[in-house]
Amino acid sequence: MEYNLYFDYENKKAEKEAFENVLKEYESQEIGYYHLPESSMKFKDINFEDFSEIAIIGIGGSSLGTKAIYEMIKNKFPLKKMVFLENPDPIDLIGKFKELKNPLFFVISKSGKTIETISIFKKVIEHFKLKPKAKNLKIITDPGSPLEKFAIDWGIECFNLPKNVGGRFSVLSAVGMIPLKAAGADIVSILQGAKDFRDRFFEKNELHLLKKASFYARNYKIYPVNVLFAYATILSAFKEWFVQLFGESLGKNGKEIMPVGHIGSIDQHSFLQLLMEGMGHKTITFLQIKNFDPDFKIPNINLPYLNATDFVNDHTFAELINKECEATKEALLAKEYPVDEIIMESLNLKNIGELIMYYEILTSAIGSLLEVNTYNQPGVEIGKTILRNKF
Amino acid sequence: MEYNLYFDYENKKAEKEAFENVLKEYESQEIGYYHLPESSMKFKDINFEDFSEIAIIGIGGSSLGTKAIYEMIKNKFPLKKMVFLENPDPIDLIGKFKELKNPLFFVISKSGKTIETISIFKKVIEHFKLKPKAKNLKIITDPGSPLEKFAIDWGIECFNLPKNVGGRFSVLSAVGMIPLKAAGADIVSILQGAKDFRDRFFEKNELHLLKKASFYARNYKIYPVNVLFAYATILSAFKEWFVQLFGESLGKNGKEIMPVGHIGSIDQHSFLQLLMEGMGHKTITFLQIKNFDPDFKIPNINLPYLNATDFVNDHTFAELINKECEATKEALLAKEYPVDEIIMESLNLKNIGELIMYYEILTSAIGSLLEVNTYNQPGVEIGKTILRNKF
Repeated sequence: MEYNLYFDYENKKAEKEAFENVLKEYESQEIGYYHLPESSMKFKDINFEDFSEIAIIGIGGSSLGTKAIYEMIKNKFPLKKMVFLENPDPIDLIGKFKELKNPLFFVISKSGKTIETISIFKKVIEHFKLKPKAKNLKIITDPGSPLEKFAIDWGIECFNLPKNVGGRFSVLSAVGMIPLKAAGADIVSILQGAKDFRDRFFEKNELHLLKKASFYARNYKIYPVNVLFAYATILSAFKEWFVQLFGESLGKNGKEIMPVGHIGSIDQHSFLQLLMEGMGHKTITFLQIKNFDPDFKIPNINLPYLNATDFVNDHTFAELINKECEATKEALLAKEYPVDEIIMESLNLKNIGELIMYYEILTSAIGSLLEVNTYNQPGVEIGKTILRNKF
Repeated sequence: MEYNLYFDYENKKAEKEAFENVLKEYESQEIGYYHLPESSMKFKDINFEDFSEIAIIGIGGSSLGTKAIYEMIKNKFPLKKMVFLENPDPIDLIGKFKELKNPLFFVISKSGKTIETISIFKKVIEHFKLKPKAKNLKIITDPGSPLEKFAIDWGIECFNLPKNVGGRFSVLSAVGMIPLKAAGADIVSILQGAKDFRDRFFEKNELHLLKKASFYARNYKIYPVNVLFAYATILSAFKEWFVQLFGESLGKNGKEIMPVGHIGSIDQHSFLQLLMEGMGHKTITFLQIKNFDPDFKIPNINLPYLNATDFVNDHTFAELINKECEATKEALLAKEYPVDEIIMESLNLKNIGELIMYYEILTSAIGSLLEVNTYNQPGVEIGKTILRNKF
C-alpha cells in the first residue's frame, strides 16, 4: 500500500514522542490490540456447522469492524451472507429477521450487558425459538462478563476478546475474526496484513504515520475536522468504523479531531461544494483502491447527443472513479487543504488487515500526542444512567 | 409532526427577513421546488408494465432523495425492490447487476450529461442488451438536455423536472416521484404532506423554522456544524440526503454549516463521546419516529446473570430507541448545546413529505440569511474540468 502526504510538516520531537508512547503500549502489553495478529491466529481452524447466514447481534465496536470488512469483500469473495442486528429499530429488525433462513447467531458485547444487544437477543430467542445448548448460537464477550456466565449456564459456546482490547479496537480479535471465519473469509491473510504493517511501523519503516499523527495532533485547533473521502461504495461501512475509532478515541478533554466519512464519487455531488468554498479548517484523507476490477469497462458505445461523455469509453470503471479521486484531490490541494492519500493497489485481505492496523496505530499516536486517554469513553456513561431512570 | 427548540434565541428582524426572502422565491415562481406538490400530482396515475425491480441510474440529487424515501418505507409498505446504480465502483455495480432479474431502468440526470450516470448507462445497455424503443427504459432529465434529445432519438419515454428545480431539491419532482410510483409508493400522500407543511409555513403557522434558521445563520461562526442524530436505521439514507442539501446549498462564500449525519442508537456507541467531551461548536438536531411499531416488543424473558437488562422487558423497541434518544438529548442539553428535535408521530408518507419540505424550506431560509446563493454549486465545476483533462 502507498501512503502519500501532501503537506509539509516536520516536528521530530513530536514524532519521537508519539513513537515512544506507542512502542511502550505495544511492548508493555498494556494495550492489547497490537498483539491480536498473533493471538487471533488460533481462530483460523475454527469451523461451525453449515448455516445459511451469519447473524451478528451487536452494536458499535461489536459490529462496525466486521461489517466494514464484510462490505468490502462480499461481492468479490465467496462468503455466506452476514446480517447485522445492531439497532433497536423495530422496522429494520423485522426486515432483517425475514432475511434469516437458517442462521448462525453471534451475540457480541464486550461488557456483556449492552442494553440494545441483550434486548435484541431476547427477541431473537423468542422469534427463533433458541434454547439452552443451542448449536446455532455463539457468544463473544470479555472473560468473566455477565454474558459469559450466561453462556456457561445455558451451555453455549463462548469466545473471549482480551480485556485490554477496547471495543473499537477489537475487529481483529474474536469479535471480528470468528464471525468472518464463519462466513468463509480468509482471516489468516487479514491478520498477516495487520502484523506486517505493525512490524514495519515498529521497525521505523512507516514514518509517514508519525508525521501525519504529529501534524494532526499539533494542529487540532486549526484543523478540528478530518474528512475521509473513500472512493468506493464498498468502503461505506469502513468509513463508519473509522468515525467510531477517531471520534470515540480522540474526542475528549475539550479536544477533538472530528471524523467525517464520505464516499467518492457520490459525495462529489454532495459534500465537495462545501469543501471547495466553505470555511476550510479540515484535513482531508483520500482512500482509493487502484486496480479493483480491471475487466469491468465502460463499453465503447456512442450514443446520439451524448458524445461529450465518450472520453471515458473503453476505460475501466476503476480508472474513472480513481481519476475522479485524483481530480478532486488536485482541486482541494489548490485550496491549500492538508491532504493525504492511502492507496490500496488491490482489494485483498492482506491490504484490508493493513488498513485496519494503520488506522488503529494512527489513532493511538494522535491520542498520545493530544494527551487524552485514547482507550476510554467516559462521556457515554451519563446517558446510560439517564436511560435507566426513564424506565 | 412536532418541532421543539431547546435554545433561547429571538431575532425578529432576521426571522422577518428570512420569511420575506422565502416568500418572494415562492410567489415569484423563481425557485421551483415550492410548487412541486401541485405540479407532480400529474404523476399519480402513471403506470408502467410489470417489472420485478426498479433500477435507478443516477447520482447525487438524482438518487439520494428517492433512496431516502425508499429506505424509510420499504419494510413497512409493499413495494417493488429498488436498486441504485450510483457510483462507478465496479465491485458494487457487479453485485447490483446480479440483483436485477427483470428491471425497469430509470436514467436520471438533470444536466443530462453526468459522467458517472452516462458511463453506468452504457454498461447497462451492453449488459442488459437495451435497444431503441426499449419499454424497460425511462429517462428523467431537464427539458432540452442532451439526454432528452437522446431519448427522442431512441424513442424512449422521457419525463422532465422543471428547470428551476435544483438536483438536491428535486425529490418531489419527476426525479423521485415517478420511480417511487413505479415501485408502488403512494406519492399522493407524500406530496400532500409536503404541500400542507408549505401552506402552514406561509400562513405563519410554523414559526419554529424561522427561529431555527435565524439562529443557525446568525451563529454559523460559533456553530459551524449541525449534527443530525436520527434515531432509526431506516433513516440512514435520509441523513445522506440531508448532508447533500445542507452541504451543497450552504457551503459557499467562505461560509458553511457543515452537516453531519448520525444514526441513533448506533452512533451513541461511536460519536457521542466526542459530542460529550470534545470541542463543542455544534448544533444538534434529533429526529425520531414516535410510534413506529407498537407491536414489536422486548419479550419478558429473564436470562440468568443478565437480569440487569430486565428493566426494558415488555417495553416496545420503539420505546427503547426513543428513550435512548431522550436520554442522549438530556445529556447533551446539560452540556449546553443548542438542541432541537423533530418528532414524527408515526412513519407514514404524509409525514415523510412534510419532513422533506421542512428541510428544504429551512435550507432556503438559512441560505437567504447567510446571503449565499442556496441553489448553485460553482465549487464542483473545477474538478470536472480537471477530470476531463485526465483522459
